[in-house]
Amino acid sequence: MTSTPVWQVAARSARLNPSVIREILKTTERPGVLSLAGGLPAADGFPVDAIRAACDRVLTRTPREALQYAASEGHGPLREWVAAHLRRLGVDSAQAERVLITTGSQQGLDLVGKVLVESDAPLAVERPTYLGAVQAFSPYAPRLVELSGDDHGPTPQALAELPRRAPGTRLAYLQPNFHNPGGWMMPAPRRVELVRAAQTAGVPLVEDDPYGALWFDRAPPPPLAAAWPEGVLYLGSFSKMLAPGLRVGWLLAPAQLWPKLLQAKQAADLHTPGFNQRLVHEVLADGWLESHLSGLRAQGRAQAEALDRALRQHMPAGTHWQRPAGGMFFWLRLPPGTDTLALLPQAVAAGVAYVPGAAFFAARPDPRTLRLSFVTLSPAKIDDAVARLGAVLRAHAGTAPQAGRDASAAAASTIGAR
Amino acid sequence: MTSTPVWQVAARSARLNPSVIREILKTTERPGVLSLAGGLPAADGFPVDAIRAACDRVLTRTPREALQYAASEGHGPLREWVAAHLRRLGVDSAQAERVLITTGSQQGLDLVGKVLVESDAPLAVERPTYLGAVQAFSPYAPRLVELSGDDHGPTPQALAELPRRAPGTRLAYLQPNFHNPGGWMMPAPRRVELVRAAQTAGVPLVEDDPYGALWFDRAPPPPLAAAWPEGVLYLGSFSKMLAPGLRVGWLLAPAQLWPKLLQAKQAADLHTPGFNQRLVHEVLADGWLESHLSGLRAQGRAQAEALDRALRQHMPAGTHWQRPAGGMFFWLRLPPGTDTLALLPQAVAAGVAYVPGAAFFAARPDPRTLRLSFVTLSPAKIDDAVARLGAVLRAHAGTAPQAGRDASAAAASTIGAR
Repeated sequence: MTSTPVWQVAARSARLNPSVIREILKTTERPGVLSLAGGLPAADGFPVDAIRAACDRVLTRTPREALQYAASEGHGPLREWVAAHLRRLGVDSAQAERVLITTGSQQGLDLVGKVLVESDAPLAVERPTYLGAVQAFSPYAPRLVELSGDDHGPTPQALAELPRRAPGTRLAYLQPNFHNPGGWMMPAPRRVELVRAAQTAGVPLVEDDPYGALWFDRAPPPPLAAAWPEGVLYLGSFSKMLAPGLRVGWLLAPAQLWPKLLQAKQAADLHTPGFNQRLVHEVLADGWLESHLSGLRAQGRAQAEALDRALRQHMPAGTHWQRPAGGMFFWLRLPPGTDTLALLPQAVAAGVAYVPGAAFFAARPDPRTLRLSFVTLSPAKIDDAVARLGAVLRAHAGTAPQAGRDASAAAASTIGAR
Repeated sequence: MTSTPVWQVAARSARLNPSVIREILKTTERPGVLSLAGGLPAADGFPVDAIRAACDRVLTRTPREALQYAASEGHGPLREWVAAHLRRLGVDSAQAERVLITTGSQQGLDLVGKVLVESDAPLAVERPTYLGAVQAFSPYAPRLVELSGDDHGPTPQALAELPRRAPGTRLAYLQPNFHNPGGWMMPAPRRVELVRAAQTAGVPLVEDDPYGALWFDRAPPPPLAAAWPEGVLYLGSFSKMLAPGLRVGWLLAPAQLWPKLLQAKQAADLHTPGFNQRLVHEVLADGWLESHLSGLRAQGRAQAEALDRALRQHMPAGTHWQRPAGGMFFWLRLPPGTDTLALLPQAVAAGVAYVPGAAFFAARPDPRTLRLSFVTLSPAKIDDAVARLGAVLRAHAGTAPQAGRDASAAAASTIGAR
C-alpha cells in the first residue's frame, strides 16, 4: 500500500526563507560577468601552506583526540587563545570559560535566535542590517524594529527611543566594525554613547564582529563588550582571518547566558569539528597571524582604494558612498528614481554584478541602495567592473559621470548620506 | 553608568536541558574507573593515515575551493556518494539532489526540530529513545508520546494506535538499526509492518541510522526509507564509519521537505565545513571503506561477544538483555527492586561506570535499566569491568551470579525482555 505523504511542517517553517542574496547571485553567474556582488574573501589570501603543516602536526601529535567526540564548549587551548585575543582588543574581562566555539559565527546567530528571540517581542536591528542574522532570527518570529543611523552607525538616540517606540525590546543586534552591508565603523565616542543609551534603555546588545581584523590603517576601537561585559554577547569568527571553509567561529557570552547557550550548542551539532578547532589553534601559534593579517590588510586597502577611485570616475552625479576603513564592502546610494533591483539585469547584461540594497532592510527597503564587494576582484578588474556599472547607471540617470563634475562635488560624494 | 543586565531568555530556553548523560559521565571520570558508559567509538579504529593522505590531496588539488564558502546543500561529489550508498542499501529512489550534508547527524535532528516539530503537537518516540533527539526536539515543545515495543523495536500496533491515542501526531522518530540505547535491530518483516502501520495511521517517519554500517555478521535489511521514500526522512552519519571529530553527516529528504530543510541548514551554519566534506569524500574513494568497515565489524563483534560472555558470568539472576547484532550498546534490565541510578556511585567506587537507563525515557523512566557500551574497552577489560559491576549488583540483589544458575536460565537471559 502506498498512501499520500502526510508531512506537516511547523508554523515557524513559513518564516524560514531562502537567502535573497544567494538567489540574486545565481542570476549573476554567467561567463564574463565581473562580480562585485559576492561576500567571498579572496582565495589568494588563504594560508594553504600553514593549514597543510597544521594538519600534519595535529594528525601526528593528537590524532585520537582530534578525530574523537569532544566537549561542546570547544577545544580548551583555542578558547584560551580567543580570550587572550579579546583581551588584546580591550575586553579586559574576557575569560576562556565564557568562550563557546561555534560552527562559524552564523551558528552563533542561530544560537542567539534559539535562546533569546521571543515570538512577537521587539528585536532591534540596524538599517540596513546583515541578512544572515535576519534569517537566523526570523523562524522565532521576532518583531524587527529598525534603528536609524548615520555614517557612524545607529544613533544613540535611536537606542534611547526604544523603550517608548518598542517597549520590551529584547536585544539590539549591531555590527560596529566595517558593517555588512553598510561599510561603516563606529568611532570610539559613538560606542561609548551607544552603550550608555543601551544601558539606560535596558536593552542588551548582540555585537557581531566578523570583519574587525580587516582594518586598513588603524585598528578599530575596543568592542562594545569592553564597556558592558555583562550586557553584550560578542560574536567572532576565523572565517575572514583564515578561511571560511573551516567553519570555526566563537562567541563570548555574559555569565547569565552561558548555560543556555551551551545547551543549545550541544543540541545543535554536539560540537564544532575538533579537527578543525585544533587546526586553527595550530595555525595561530607563534605569532604567525599578525604577519598574515598584514598581508590581507594591505591587499584590502589597495582594493578599496581602487574601488573608491573607480566610483569617483564612473558613478553618476548624486551618488553617495563612504569609503570604508576596513572590511569587505562599499554601500552606495544612487540618485532619486533609481531602482537597483530593477537595473540588475541590465548590469549583468553589461558584464557586472552587485547586490541590490533592498535585500538588507528588515523593513522599508531603500531601492536606491546597493552593495559592492572589493575583495574578490583585482584593482584592474575593479576599475573595469565599475566602468561597466557606471555606464548602465548613467544611461539610466541620463547624467554625466562624477568625474565630469567639479572636484568639490566629488569630494562631497565620499562623505556619504544614508 | 553601569546598570543591571537585562537579558530575558526566550520561553523555549527553559526546555533546553543539559545532556543527562554528559552530566553522569562527569561523575564517573576518575582514574581507575573502567567505563562502559560512554558512546565513543574506539579511537584505534580511526583511519588516521587515510585522513592524512586525504588532507594532502585536498590541499594540493582544490585548496581554494575547500577553504572557501560553499553551497549549503553540501559538496556535490559527496552528495553523489551518499546517494549511491543509499541505493546500495536498498533505497532505490535515492538521488543526490535530495541529500543534504549536515554537521554530524545531530544537526539533522536539530533541523528536524526546527522545520517539523510543532508546539503542543504529539511526536512519537521509542521507549527508550535517543537522548540527543529529545534534546534537539524539546525546545520546540512537542508532546512526546512513547511507542511500546519488544525485542524487534516498536510494535506496528503501537503505531496503529496513534490516531486514537494521540491524534495529530506529526511524526514518529525511530532508530531501526542497533538502537541507542536499546540495542535492537528491526528485522525485515517488522520494517514492512511498521511502514504499513505508519502509512495507515498517516504518521511520517524520521529514521535515524548512525550505526547501520556496524553490523557483525549480516547487513541489516533495507532502511524504512526504501519502502516509503516520500514518507521517511532518513538521517545518516560518517561519525561511526570514519571519525566523529570531522562532524559530517547527511540527511535524505522527501521532496516536500527539501526547501525548508535547506533554508534551515543555511540559517544554522551556512554549510558544513567544505574542507571536511572533501576530506571525507577523498577517504571514501577507491573502495577503501569496505575493508575499513570489515575491521571495525570484526572488532565490534569480538567486544560484543566478550561483553555477552561476561554478563552471563557475572550478572545477578533475573537480569535480562539481548545480545545486539551490531552497533555499540547492550541494554540491560535488572531484577525488580533495582535502581541503577541510585547504584551508580557504588559502581564507580568499585571502578566501573555505566549509564542508568532512566536517562533514555521520554516518560515513565524504568529504574531497572542500564546501558553498556562495548566499543571503548578491550575484551579483557570488558570482563574485568563486568566482574566489578556484577559484584555491586549481586551484593545489592543478594543473589548468586548468573553463571551459578542452570544453563537454560542463562540462555533465556539473552532473549531479553522490555
